[in-house]
This record gives sequence, C-alpha cells and structure tokens, in this order.
Amino acid sequence: MLFTEIIKFIKNGKSGYIKSHFIEDINIISPASITLASQNQITFLEENNNLKENIMTTKASAIILFNDKELLQKTYKRNISTIVVSHPKIAFAEILNIFEKEIIPESGIDSSAVINSTSKIGDNCYVGPNVFIGKNTCIGKNNFIYPGTVILDNVEIGDNNIISPNCVIYQNTKIKDHCIVNSNTVLGSEGFGFIPKDGKWLKVPQTGGVIINNSVEIGTNCCIDRPAVGDTIIGEGTKIDNLVQIGHGVKIGRNCAFAAQVGIAGGAIIGDGVILAGQVGVNNRVKVGNNVIASSKCGIHADVNDGEVISGFPAIPNKLWLRSSSLFKKLPDLAKKLRQLDKK
Amino acid sequence: MLFTEIIKFIKNGKSGYIKSHFIEDINIISPASITLASQNQITFLEENNNLKENIMTTKASAIILFNDKELLQKTYKRNISTIVVSHPKIAFAEILNIFEKEIIPESGIDSSAVINSTSKIGDNCYVGPNVFIGKNTCIGKNNFIYPGTVILDNVEIGDNNIISPNCVIYQNTKIKDHCIVNSNTVLGSEGFGFIPKDGKWLKVPQTGGVIINNSVEIGTNCCIDRPAVGDTIIGEGTKIDNLVQIGHGVKIGRNCAFAAQVGIAGGAIIGDGVILAGQVGVNNRVKVGNNVIASSKCGIHADVNDGEVISGFPAIPNKLWLRSSSLFKKLPDLAKKLRQLDKK
Amino acid sequence: MLFTEIIKFIKNGKSGYIKSHFIEDINIISPASITLASQNQITFLEENNNLKENIMTTKASAIILFNDKELLQKTYKRNISTIVVSHPKIAFAEILNIFEKEIIPESGIDSSAVINSTSKIGDNCYVGPNVFIGKNTCIGKNNFIYPGTVILDNVEIGDNNIISPNCVIYQNTKIKDHCIVNSNTVLGSEGFGFIPKDGKWLKVPQTGGVIINNSVEIGTNCCIDRPAVGDTIIGEGTKIDNLVQIGHGVKIGRNCAFAAQVGIAGGAIIGDGVILAGQVGVNNRVKVGNNVIASSKCGIHADVNDGEVISGFPAIPNKLWLRSSSLFKKLPDLAKKLRQLDKK
Repeated sequence: MLFTEIIKFIKNGKSGYIKSHFIEDINIISPASITLASQNQITFLEENNNLKENIMTTKASAIILFNDKELLQKTYKRNISTIVVSHPKIAFAEILNIFEKEIIPESGIDSSAVINSTSKIGDNCYVGPNVFIGKNTCIGKNNFIYPGTVILDNVEIGDNNIISPNCVIYQNTKIKDHCIVNSNTVLGSEGFGFIPKDGKWLKVPQTGGVIINNSVEIGTNCCIDRPAVGDTIIGEGTKIDNLVQIGHGVKIGRNCAFAAQVGIAGGAIIGDGVILAGQVGVNNRVKVGNNVIASSKCGIHADVNDGEVISGFPAIPNKLWLRSSSLFKKLPDLAKKLRQLDKK
Repeated sequence: MLFTEIIKFIKNGKSGYIKSHFIEDINIISPASITLASQNQITFLEENNNLKENIMTTKASAIILFNDKELLQKTYKRNISTIVVSHPKIAFAEILNIFEKEIIPESGIDSSAVINSTSKIGDNCYVGPNVFIGKNTCIGKNNFIYPGTVILDNVEIGDNNIISPNCVIYQNTKIKDHCIVNSNTVLGSEGFGFIPKDGKWLKVPQTGGVIINNSVEIGTNCCIDRPAVGDTIIGEGTKIDNLVQIGHGVKIGRNCAFAAQVGIAGGAIIGDGVILAGQVGVNNRVKVGNNVIASSKCGIHADVNDGEVISGFPAIPNKLWLRSSSLFKKLPDLAKKLRQLDKK
Repeated sequence: MLFTEIIKFIKNGKSGYIKSHFIEDINIISPASITLASQNQITFLEENNNLKENIMTTKASAIILFNDKELLQKTYKRNISTIVVSHPKIAFAEILNIFEKEIIPESGIDSSAVINSTSKIGDNCYVGPNVFIGKNTCIGKNNFIYPGTVILDNVEIGDNNIISPNCVIYQNTKIKDHCIVNSNTVLGSEGFGFIPKDGKWLKVPQTGGVIINNSVEIGTNCCIDRPAVGDTIIGEGTKIDNLVQIGHGVKIGRNCAFAAQVGIAGGAIIGDGVILAGQVGVNNRVKVGNNVIASSKCGIHADVNDGEVISGFPAIPNKLWLRSSSLFKKLPDLAKKLRQLDKK
C-alpha cells in the first residue's frame, strides 16, 4: 500500500491527523514495532513511550508520531517518512486493521457438529467440527461457533458474535450482538452458593442466568457464573481479559476493562467505565462506583465512590498507598528511631 | 404451588419453621430476589441483610423472614404473606429446589462418543457427544458425562456424579460418589515437579494419582494435580469454586470451602472445615488446622493452628491485621510525628 | 528390580553416587514416599526435609539418602538398605523414570479427527479423537495431539511434542521440539489490546504470534496471548505451572520456572533462570533481570536487576520485606509508644 494511500486512510480515521512528510511515495508492506521494523514497514511512537531513543536506530521506512518537533527533526534526518497525529496508537490500530489477514472460516455447519433439532441457527453462521448445541437454543445470524464449543439448552445468542474453540455456554445464558468469547471460557456455570449447616455445606440451587450485552469481549479461561435467582449481567462494551472470575449475581456496567486474573465475588455491583488492573479482587456485594480505577493486586473490601483511584489491600486511595508503601520499607528505620527516642 | 403447600414443605425442611401468616392462599409461581420479585413470587430476607429496606417496596406476594417483630409488622401492613424460620436462606434454597426445572439429559451413550472397548460404563449413564474415554476406565451408574469431556486411561468413577462439558480427567484419578466437576476443569494433570540442576530443570515423573471423595464439588477451570508418588486427596463434602489450583500431593480435609482463584502449593495439608476466601494462597507443605478461616488474598506461609481466623500477607491473626492495616494508611502521619519528636 | 541393579542405575545417573549398603539383594517393586512406603519399596530423604523422623518408622525396604552419618546409622539399625548420593531427589526422579508405566497411545490418526487437507502431519504422530486441525498447519514427527484439542490455521509444531486434551492453539503459533502443553491451555489467543477513546474501548488488532522454544513445559488452563505485532516468546527450557497468564508481547528467557497463578502483563521482559513463586504479578513492560527470584504473591511494579531476591507488593528486597513485615504486625505497639512519647 502506498504511503500516500495510508495518509488518506489516517485522515479519515479517529486518530486526529495533523500533518505528514515524505520524500518518496514508498510502498508500505506491513506494520511492525519500532524495534523490529525493517525497510518498507511502518511503525509508531506515542508520547511517554520509553522507546523514543529507537528513532535513531529503527529500520522502519515510515512512522506515525505525536506532535514533537525534536523527534520530527530526527526522522527528517534519517529520511523516515512521517505522519503526525494526536493519537499515534489509534492510527497504528487502524493500519493494523488494513493489513490484518483475518482468517475467517466459511459459513456452514460442519457435519461432525451435534445440534439438537429443537434449536435454531440463523443465516450465514459457521458452526465448526465437534460443536454441540443442546435443546431450545436460538442462535442468530453471522455467528462463528468454533470447534469443540459446547452450548447447552435454552441459550440465546444474537448476531455477529464469535464464540471461540472449546467454550462452554450453559442454559439461560443470553449473548446479545457483536460479542467475542475467547477460548475455553465458561459462561453460566452454577454460582458457588452453599450454606453452612451442621458442619456441612447445603447447596443453594442456581436457577438464574447470565446476560452478556452488546460488544462485550471476554478473554480465555474465564468463568462467569449464574446466580440462584435473577441474572449475572455484563454491560455493553465491557472488555474482560484472561482467567477472570465473575461470581454469581454480579452486575457490571458499561465500557469497563478488567485485566487478567481479576476476581469479582458474588453480588458485587460495578459501575460504568471501571478499570481493574491485573489480579484485583472485589469482595461479595461490594459496590464500585463509575470510573473507578484500581491498580494491580488491589483488594476491594468496601464500597468505592465514583472516580476514585485506589490501590493496596485493603484498598485505599492510590496517593496515600504510594506514600504508605514507601514508608513500609522504612519501618525498620522508623522502629529504630523510636527505640532511640524512647531511651532518651 | 399454593402458599399452604409451601408452608407444609418448609415445615418438613431444615430451616427451623417458626410460624406463618397469610390472608389468602395465593398461588406462588416462582422464587425471586427481593428487589426483582413481582406478584405471585416468593422471596426471602435473612438477618444482617442490607436489603431490609426493600420490605417496603418489594412486589413479592410472599416472603420468608427471620423472626423480627418490626419487619413482620411491615409485611402485615403491606399484605405480604410470610413464613418465619430460623434460617431463611435454607428455606429459600429448599423452595428453589422445588421450582428448579433441572435440565437432565436422557441416559444413553451418544454415537459420537469414542470409548475404548476395555472400559466399562454402568447402568443409566449419560455419555454426551464427542466424549472420549480411554483404556481400562471404570465408570459406575447414574453418571452424567457431558459433551467434549476427555477421560483418559485407568480412571475410576463411582456413582451419581456429574462431569461437566470439556473437562479432562487423567489416569489414576478416582472420583467416588455424588460429586460435581464443573466445566473445563482438569483432574490428575502432572504436578509441577522440577529439580534445578546445572542451570536447567530436571523433571520428576509424576506417577501418583488424585482421589476425589464423596460429595465433593469442583468449580470451572480448576486444576488438581497428581504427585510424584502417592495421591492428591480432596476430602468428603469439600466445595471448591472456580479457577482454583490444587498442587501435587496436597491433602484436603472434609467439608472445606475454597473460593475462586485460591492456590494451594504442593504438599500442603489442609484440615476439616477450612474456609479459604478468594485469591488466598497456601505455601508448599504448610499445614492448616481444622476450621481455620482465611480472609481474601491471604498468603499462608507457615502452619496455622485449629480454629484460627487469619488475614494478610504473610498471614497474621485477623484482629491484629485489621489494626495494623488501619495504621498502615496512617504511616505518613506516624512518620511525621516521629520526625517532630526527633527534632525536639 | 533388584537393589543391586538400582545401585548400578544410580551410579550412571546425575545424582552424584557416594556409597551404598545392603545385607540382602532385595527386590524393589516400586518407589514411594517415606510416610506411605511399605516393604519392598524404595523411598528417599533429602537434606532439610522435615520428614527425617520418619526414618525410624518407615516400612520402606530401601532408601536414598544424603550423606549424613547419624541418619545412616539409624537405617543400619532398622535394616533398611541405603544408597547415599549428593542429590537424593534427583536419584529418586531417576528411579521414578524406571518404574513409570507411561501410558502412550499408539501412533495414528483417529477417524473422528477433522484435519484440513492443506495441513501436514509428520511420521509417527498420534492425533486423538475429535481433534480439529485447520488450514496450512504443519506438524512434525513423533507428536502426541490428545483428544479434543483444536489447532487453528498456520500453526507450526516441530517434533516430539505433547499437546494434551482440549487445548486450543491459534494461528501464527510456533511450537519447537520436546515441548509439553498441558490440558485446556490456550496458546496464541488475542492479546488484551484496547485504547480508551470517548468513553469506549477501541480494539487494537492482534496480528502477531507466539513462539514456544524447545523443551518448554506449560501447565493446565494457562493463557499465552499473541501481540499486535511481533511475537510473544517463551525461552528454551522454561517451565510454567497451571493457571498462568502470559500477556501479549511478553519475552521470557531460558530455564525460568513460574509457579501456579502467576500473571505477566503485556510487554514485560523476563531474563533467564527467573523463578516466580505462586500468584506473583509482573506489570506491563517491566524488565526482570536474569536469575531473579520473586516470592509468592509478589507484585513487580518496576524493573529488577539480575540476581535479586524480592518479595511483597510492591516488591522490595526479600530481607527488607521480612523485617518490614515483622514490624507491620507490631504497628499497634509502635503507634502506642509514639503516643506515649508524644505526651511526655
């Protein structure tokens, strides 16, 4: 693809085109990272990226940059063609979209799939080998159900979804439209509901369901449980990374992002736009407000107000945690000084 | 189901029936949560539940309550039929049991299952599509083996078990009776046994097995490893949530409950009735006494005596941890005061 | 196997044979742990093992010991045959290797496997029931692909690998030789790449791949993601336990060992010989030097130099962490003393 075509494409995109510069209209064959790029490849550099020094060594023929005079001068000197935008990473994502050779299986139902006759599958779906679909399940159009996935009874799947290989989707699960469920993820498994009684555990039947709203993406090896009554709900546009546990009856708002190994215990309520970093835990029935950010390994034991940035275990405001943590490692000194003062 | 029939049912149950009250013998169509219940539904409210205020707004026609005069008066005023019991949650679980429309596949072996001729399957079992069963495996009666599950050689499965879709059960695993293994869980995979030698890792063959005793329930995406010699053992009645790691050679007692993302390292010994909250970790070879309770994210580095309640990382008594944690966030103040005293 | 044959075998091994002692050339039927061993079984005891007392009660007929006069005297008295070596655990691993009855399926492709005609499978491979293999995938010789595993398009697998049941291997994944991938593990799933934009998440296409080098072993239910561009790389000889998350674009060196539930965020670079204990987390783009050891639950927020031993969250040097942690539980006392001093 010619560099001038890429410029045109970026101008029509969402990255905030500012300007561009080139001597020759080179042919761009693919995108690459700044450290690995070679001739005829395009790369990018965003603000605050610690790879800036690579501008002097990269072999990329073109680069997408944020608006920085000094860096731009360097690219001129090294004869690298440039596109300057407000959000280089967005521009790079758009370029990846052009060059991505998506591997899309042809629509059709593989002969080895076992599908109950009471279930319906819409137009233009791919149902891969060894898929199982139970009774009274209703699947819309343009869905990809990859090999080895098991969909049990009474499941509703809308349109334009991707269900990756070896997933399991239980009864009473509803997946709306434009969702991606990655491999080996389980939706709608029974919640962990037991009551202590005479030293044993009495089981609470989990008769509820799971609702996955539009444009949700769920990583690999995740678990989203169904509750005793009602539904576990994932809000529109929320993105969930790998190995994440969502307990029974949890409600998650819209456009959240949860990193890998996050665990949310039963009945917790999470607002919109919440960001939970890796290995964060949220306790039973806790309410987390809108736009909360929790840093990695944070343990959220109590309700959190809108917009808070929290850290630590139990979670406290991030700035306080940074100060307290830096004093934690000085505890031996503090204790020593205290002993000295005490002796005086 | 008529309300009077439900009363009769609860009287015969384990929740400790006290009394009931109604004006009309209404028809109950299903159970629901207090916030979502509508007419002709029954709900419940247990002590210390922060949803008490909902008693004034719920649309439920009937409610199971603990013995509280004030709340009871409110239900009378709102014309809600009531059943008063000692343990409302147990009564509600019993009602869920009545109304649950369990989806039970018919017994029979699907034609797409691949079963080695040396293996035996007892009467009245369901073996779903695309199940694989290896050599010399012995499966009792009344078992459900859901689609996509792989059971390798020399496995013994007793009676009345549920093995969910896409599980993997390795050689030398024994599952007794009345167990539930949820989806994508792996039992009997090889323990992580390596010895450092000249900068590389020498593998220790894992020739042991896994024993799952009666009435054990295991969540989705769990891993229970087999050891080099001997067995990894899960005691009768123990319940395990999702994404839990049980290392090789671990022995777990009876009637324990482990929440999601718990990890127990190789050779640890856990007593009876132990409760581990979410994301708790237990170190190699540590002994945890009977009835220990470890709060979420706790890191158990050393042996713990019977009945202790522990928190934190490394784990300390819960009450001490609460006090120390509340001082952790005051460390900046404490350090400041110390500096001031030092100047004097 | 006769005891004298075992001696010969150990002499030829890597455990550092020192001497042996026996009265009668007994027949050894199998290896066992020191607590469970019975007559005609062989066990072992390594230095610093807290099971030393069992030397007086074990029913084992033979034992592999480290060079300890006192213990040796005890075995003489109890008439237990002994082999003394520098590394008893290595000797025991070698003996396990002899006695292990490996269950190896016969080579051949099961008729229920669905394999695209454009893919190639080398000589002497086992491809189990219900395996799916997509387009243009190239699999070498002597591989075991267990039942239910899904291998998508454009995958390269070398020789002598074991891919366990129900794994998923995505496009652009390369597995070299002598690797083991345990059950339900997913390699090459799309990295968690989203850019915040107007309150929503813009997806970054993940067009890269995953490279698993020689002699890597990966546990059950693990996730190794592919990046936007370039490759996620696991170095030769590295061993990974269960439920581990390796984010997109992570580079891991050679001969590392990661325990269960470790999570490594996108773009992190891990050196050679790094040991991460259970539930450790590594932040985005962090660089961890060679031979670093991180204790369990450690949170690595910043770069770590070669050879450091670290603990805690955020990670600090292990010795400092031990001292600070022991003072953490004394915070109530320290605060009290400070108040007293303040009053004076």
